[in-house]
Amino acid sequence: MSGDVRMRGFGRRTSVAEAQALIAQRLRPLGVERVPFRQALGRILAEELLAEQNVPAHPRSAMDGYAVRAQDLPGKLRVIGQILAAQTFEGRLGDHQAVRIMTGGKIPEGADAVVMVEEAKVEGDEVHFSRPAELRQHILETGCDLTRGAVVLSRGRRIRPQDLSLLATIGALEVPVQKRPVVRIVPSGTELIPPGRRPTGTEIVESNSFLLEALVRRDGGRPELHPIIGDSPEVLRQALSAPGADLVVVTGGSSVGQEDFAPVIARELGELPIHGIQVKPASPTGIGFTPHSALLLAPGYPVATFVAWDLFGRPMLERLGGAPSRWPYRRQTAVLSEALKKPADRVDIVRVLLEPDPSGGPARARPIPGGASLLSTVTRADGFVLFEAGAEVLPAGTKVEVDLYEP
Amino acid sequence: MSGDVRMRGFGRRTSVAEAQALIAQRLRPLGVERVPFRQALGRILAEELLAEQNVPAHPRSAMDGYAVRAQDLPGKLRVIGQILAAQTFEGRLGDHQAVRIMTGGKIPEGADAVVMVEEAKVEGDEVHFSRPAELRQHILETGCDLTRGAVVLSRGRRIRPQDLSLLATIGALEVPVQKRPVVRIVPSGTELIPPGRRPTGTEIVESNSFLLEALVRRDGGRPELHPIIGDSPEVLRQALSAPGADLVVVTGGSSVGQEDFAPVIARELGELPIHGIQVKPASPTGIGFTPHSALLLAPGYPVATFVAWDLFGRPMLERLGGAPSRWPYRRQTAVLSEALKKPADRVDIVRVLLEPDPSGGPARARPIPGGASLLSTVTRADGFVLFEAGAEVLPAGTKVEVDLYEP
Repeated sequence: MSGDVRMRGFGRRTSVAEAQALIAQRLRPLGVERVPFRQALGRILAEELLAEQNVPAHPRSAMDGYAVRAQDLPGKLRVIGQILAAQTFEGRLGDHQAVRIMTGGKIPEGADAVVMVEEAKVEGDEVHFSRPAELRQHILETGCDLTRGAVVLSRGRRIRPQDLSLLATIGALEVPVQKRPVVRIVPSGTELIPPGRRPTGTEIVESNSFLLEALVRRDGGRPELHPIIGDSPEVLRQALSAPGADLVVVTGGSSVGQEDFAPVIARELGELPIHGIQVKPASPTGIGFTPHSALLLAPGYPVATFVAWDLFGRPMLERLGGAPSRWPYRRQTAVLSEALKKPADRVDIVRVLLEPDPSGGPARARPIPGGASLLSTVTRADGFVLFEAGAEVLPAGTKVEVDLYEP
Repeated sequence: MSGDVRMRGFGRRTSVAEAQALIAQRLRPLGVERVPFRQALGRILAEELLAEQNVPAHPRSAMDGYAVRAQDLPGKLRVIGQILAAQTFEGRLGDHQAVRIMTGGKIPEGADAVVMVEEAKVEGDEVHFSRPAELRQHILETGCDLTRGAVVLSRGRRIRPQDLSLLATIGALEVPVQKRPVVRIVPSGTELIPPGRRPTGTEIVESNSFLLEALVRRDGGRPELHPIIGDSPEVLRQALSAPGADLVVVTGGSSVGQEDFAPVIARELGELPIHGIQVKPASPTGIGFTPHSALLLAPGYPVATFVAWDLFGRPMLERLGGAPSRWPYRRQTAVLSEALKKPADRVDIVRVLLEPDPSGGPARARPIPGGASLLSTVTRADGFVLFEAGAEVLPAGTKVEVDLYEP
């Protein structure tokens, strides 16, 4: 073998749990920014929000009907006015009087109940109710929705559609949210060409960066695509060390082969406490830190890059973004069609097809043959079984939770 | 009562299932457009996509190791060259020869197996293997990932992150996808003011439009917010009839009260085959059609608008967008803390808090008191129980699926 061929072995491979614990320990939220509330969907609230006013600000009718004194019912009342939604009734309700009121209307002085319009029988200027009314019925009391001074949204909450209504209601036109990390995506490999040209010879179309771009978006980060890095360690060094990114993800060149510069450069620029993880696929994954950013060295195979992102890149992004952990997949119970085996201390991501059970039971999860090199194993799959560390065998027929790829 | 008070009752209320069946029957996809593949995440593929070339285009190594002839192993082979990822080996492998090869390297002529580097013992220009090799082992055959002419993504698929890698790989830089419907959101109500000013008197801050904007985005539509419509039927008529929207959603004024113009105008402009649905909240919902667009008349209470969107607006959007139906919530099994009752033919959306079970069983689902008028019932809730038509009672302790609001 010629002298430039440097074969380096992995040291001890780290467990998935250890790698995730290191991520939680070493990374901290970037900080807080304020955004217009209409752009806050899915963002992480950085402070608790209080209601500054009572909602409603005064008692309102919950129904279309009549504002009455409960003690007058059953009986015949005189209708002395009406209240449309944006109107008030200036007078005060006296004995045996009623005011026609629309949903949301302000309860007039003197009234202490609302009767639904369906229960009213109108006779000229009078209205007859045959049933009694309960005190305060169909009245929305002051502050019953939001009470002045109460916490209405907690710190750390991922903002939901209904929260936007709440923010509008309390007048929080700008909201403090965690900053979204910038993720620089660096495709690396001498054989790679950009998409759009048919590959010749040994060329391979670079595609991992587009997968990662979508995954970063899905998980709340701001992706930035770096051009393909070929055979220049200097360009790779630049991509890893330039400021402006909170997390740098290199795909390809992460292993211990002779063209795998990324781990060497990562150690030059900072540290690479993890290189080699007990997971399949994605075992050559590296996790490191430079003065400017966190580093994820992801293997070049698309399936391995995908797994490295879900298990390690996503938690790194979430920590930097101050976000509670969110597993991106829905789950469905299924039954294994065949046994799965692996070493006890490894985590396996087993891509599966879901096949309906002819007798109407849970679907069958059928593993897809083919390694991490085959992108089609994740585009054909319905999902995957996360075969946890600790076990070596899952017999055929085992009930498993399948993580569904369907978005 | 004065003459301008027009009280109209609902006719027969439609069942939720009937309303959803009408939506499926009456609405059709808008059509197809082409978008750059990097913008296609979550879009609905409008045509099936084929692989135009084999991937890989020639046999490649799946491992870092040595390309060999299987019949020569076990034994000592002479290393006659090396292949980095972007290189080819021009010679042909003879008897008892090996070529050092990196992952992804093109298998040289004459070789029929790859042996992992971990199994090789290098001795000068020779390499020794102590174990036999299987024919074709660790070789990715031509077309094993994507086969020329095969369908790689089906029509109607919601495009996933991994599909972007696939699109890049097959050179599909533009993809045909279903057009996304434009949804005009029309807040209606004389009592409404825009957010940012503290309401006085009977005013209420308009907030439904921001909820709907987020829900339309979540479900793949293009929201457009219309200014608040006060007491002018003419402005409402204009908002319902102006071209440019595929679906118009009016919130507020959808009922049968005297200020509820929307149903009247909808009938003038087109038809309103559904007005009043057996669902709580959101029973005053209307579904209609004008020459330009579909119409959803949603009740003014935010919780009711939310339910009307999830059960009816979302399916309308999905039909117009050519999208397979997608329930927007993950589910979790829980146990009811108290009994639920309703009329058999109604569907109830019961907002609940999830409380951990002290003995480690499934969480308890505790219904939140308060009607559709209280926005806080959906911002405080962890999710809801969809209490289906057909049943009248769910006893305390019933196992239910809770739809989780957490995004």
